[in-house]
Amino acid sequence: MQIAIVVYDRFTALDVVGPYEILSRVPDAETVFVAEEAGLVRTETGFLAISADKALSEVPGPDIVVVSGGPGQSALMDHEPLLDWLRAADATSTWTTSVCSGSLLLAAAGLLKGRRATSHWLALDQLSRFGAEPTGERVVFDGKYVTAAGVSSGIDMGLALLGRIAGDEHAQAVQLGTEYDPQPPYDAGSPEKAPAHIVELLRARSRFILS
Amino acid sequence: MQIAIVVYDRFTALDVVGPYEILSRVPDAETVFVAEEAGLVRTETGFLAISADKALSEVPGPDIVVVSGGPGQSALMDHEPLLDWLRAADATSTWTTSVCSGSLLLAAAGLLKGRRATSHWLALDQLSRFGAEPTGERVVFDGKYVTAAGVSSGIDMGLALLGRIAGDEHAQAVQLGTEYDPQPPYDAGSPEKAPAHIVELLRARSRFILS
Repeated sequence: MQIAIVVYDRFTALDVVGPYEILSRVPDAETVFVAEEAGLVRTETGFLAISADKALSEVPGPDIVVVSGGPGQSALMDHEPLLDWLRAADATSTWTTSVCSGSLLLAAAGLLKGRRATSHWLALDQLSRFGAEPTGERVVFDGKYVTAAGVSSGIDMGLALLGRIAGDEHAQAVQLGTEYDPQPPYDAGSPEKAPAHIVELLRARSRFILS
Repeated sequence: MQIAIVVYDRFTALDVVGPYEILSRVPDAETVFVAEEAGLVRTETGFLAISADKALSEVPGPDIVVVSGGPGQSALMDHEPLLDWLRAADATSTWTTSVCSGSLLLAAAGLLKGRRATSHWLALDQLSRFGAEPTGERVVFDGKYVTAAGVSSGIDMGLALLGRIAGDEHAQAVQLGTEYDPQPPYDAGSPEKAPAHIVELLRARSRFILS
């Protein structure tokens, strides 16, 4: 089994390192980070670069596709080399997945038409432009399509998907191994829970980021 | 302000990408990934390499030190170039922190003597060999020393530390931006919560990993 994690300039690291840490524990599977060209790919902060070990063209038929989100997504919404690869990979994948605004790339490739899907809460509305049905759930399964909400939700998606692939006990062992017993010091992780003025602050900023 | 994130061969990616994603949002701070030598550093799975943009020697006085855990830690417990750098960096740091078995490296450098500290649950006992006082808490503050439990706990540590540095509202905004509203599909993230036979399975495996 091959798991391809798709990154690009100005991706968000935790979007994909969450699922990587969980799904790289699928028994007998190879995980590979891919980008349009192999080489270093830098996150939106500029502070972290990871190695895309292979180019998209070198990984034509992965079993699982995981597409990162991040501010760089908006520049790729009509970038055919990526969208074509997504369509081709999806044609033979077992699971096609995304975290955060990565679902907008799946949607732009036409893969989420008529499907329930999620995204970062600030990007959720944009999904319907492409015929997807946005839902505010943290992890959404619709057939073989699995989308996760913002940034950190990829960990939850990874565990849910690992359970489907390798069984609940294996997923629980990986949860215990990664000591995923979250205890956030605040309860502000969703727009429903965060103070209203902080939600508005991020909405105001996002006009510049997401438009 | 400069934040140095210390990685090494066979580190665990989520250990440091969690805190990176949070702490890189400290206003006006630079975050830099460092290793003994600059260049690509690969995780224990072999599937992911990140760029250590600078060598330890190029970052002599960071304000915040974050030390990764991971299977590679055990090979470094008497590696003086790293331990010496940790001691020197700690002499002028504002915060000295670790995730997972990274606390064993801080302890081996003599920095946790008489201090309360935590680590991955499978590594917790080893802390006392170096005069630290192990506690099973997920994030432990003792003066300027902040240690986090296994792998995913670095996200919680990052938010708690960000709150101390930049205020609760900024930390809440970052929690909302990263949509950190965890909803694990299982409740097996600590040895107290996981099924007993899964805890024993990991303990048995760890004899080979951690000894």
